Amino acid sequence: MRYFLHLAYKGTNYHGWQRQPNGLSVQEVLETALSTVLRQPTAIVGSGRTDAGVHAGQQFAHFDTEVAIPVQLLRSLNSMIPADIAVYDCFPVRPDDHARFTALSRYYQYQISRRKDPFRDGLVYVFTLPLNVERMNEAASRLLHHIDFESFSKVRTDVKTFNCQIERAYWAQQPNGDLVFHIKANRFLHGMVRAIVGTLLAVGQERLSVADFEQIILARDRKRAGRAAPAEGLSLVEVGYPEEVMCGRQ
Amino acid sequence: MRYFLHLAYKGTNYHGWQRQPNGLSVQEVLETALSTVLRQPTAIVGSGRTDAGVHAGQQFAHFDTEVAIPVQLLRSLNSMIPADIAVYDCFPVRPDDHARFTALSRYYQYQISRRKDPFRDGLVYVFTLPLNVERMNEAASRLLHHIDFESFSKVRTDVKTFNCQIERAYWAQQPNGDLVFHIKANRFLHGMVRAIVGTLLAVGQERLSVADFEQIILARDRKRAGRAAPAEGLSLVEVGYPEEVMCGRQ
Repeated sequence: MRYFLHLAYKGTNYHGWQRQPNGLSVQEVLETALSTVLRQPTAIVGSGRTDAGVHAGQQFAHFDTEVAIPVQLLRSLNSMIPADIAVYDCFPVRPDDHARFTALSRYYQYQISRRKDPFRDGLVYVFTLPLNVERMNEAASRLLHHIDFESFSKVRTDVKTFNCQIERAYWAQQPNGDLVFHIKANRFLHGMVRAIVGTLLAVGQERLSVADFEQIILARDRKRAGRAAPAEGLSLVEVGYPEEVMCGRQ
Repeated sequence: MRYFLHLAYKGTNYHGWQRQPNGLSVQEVLETALSTVLRQPTAIVGSGRTDAGVHAGQQFAHFDTEVAIPVQLLRSLNSMIPADIAVYDCFPVRPDDHARFTALSRYYQYQISRRKDPFRDGLVYVFTLPLNVERMNEAASRLLHHIDFESFSKVRTDVKTFNCQIERAYWAQQPNGDLVFHIKANRFLHGMVRAIVGTLLAVGQERLSVADFEQIILARDRKRAGRAAPAEGLSLVEVGYPEEVMCGRQ
């Protein structure tokens, strides 16, 4: 039987989602807890990787087991894992529903606070210099007219194409003064959102023009784009699946 | 010359506001930074103490100095102090405006999350048991009819009276599901808000009736009240001063 987990985490204390030898990952914490509760080694597969320090307000992962799911699974898992990871739901899916390959879209937000915020250290990027938000939005809208985003991809990567269908990309000012970048696509390349945000911040500071930004996209060269914005501002906020996958959800 | 500081802090990593020998306090961190920036030992006086682990979304403190205030004071202070304390303003007041004695009111909120929240660890009290909120509000409204709150005061205390004029006391449900207790008074006794919240949670769980709650107030005996609610849910959110004090504020 295959199950989906619906979870969330603050990434500050983790070396990203993906299990790795040199640091604690969210995946490792969850696999350890799940294997303990189910009393057998159980691997989980996430909807995608998030980098070290990146958060997830909504993340999904799947696992396979023949063990009956204990009624108290969520309570047990949440009491075993630290306070910065929460598991909200566990529901059955069809055997070929895959957390990563069945996902239709990913939606990220990049949160910028315009002043020091003692309550959100590690959760927002504090950036207090003046920004031309209108210009940043003009540049962001150009992302919707392109398909190849090699310029915003980490160089060492094993993907077959750099094509992404971006369906949403804009900056919005929140009532509390925060500036938030919203971006949604079928897929993202490694480091892509942070490279886009960093480059758009250069546009906002008028160090790049909107035309420059579009030239950077066309160049297909990571060296042309700006420095990656810090991980702390970035959150995966929604993963989209076909409705049928979600029908077992409570 | 006397100045007011407007500040905020996350209390998780501090032994409260008040300077003390056995642990780092918010006051000590601020005095050290301010003394360094002004290049002379400078003491600050807060509007009141907050306990270890209690937060302040808005706090005021005053200090006296003959030194000219550097233009970059806020920037310097904020770069010297940790990310969990922020100084938002520094403005001149009259020589007898006192952060504690001139304050007319204090307003606290106690934040309860109804589910585990990876992004607000230490900032909310996670309480998932069922609660009768209507009954909690009925009991809370009784607070407005009394003046002596010795039953909710820590026993070792040097205050002359236990009288407080409570002008606001109610629970509100937030759109995100949080349950928040709002309480405003001219003054609070040591440990008072947490003792009231703990007792109201017993009312909400129907372990105490509304009449029991009123009897507890009338008893003037701390042993009768419930266990103090954890510090993490509590925040000082507003300190009220006469308008004239605030006129130098930017």
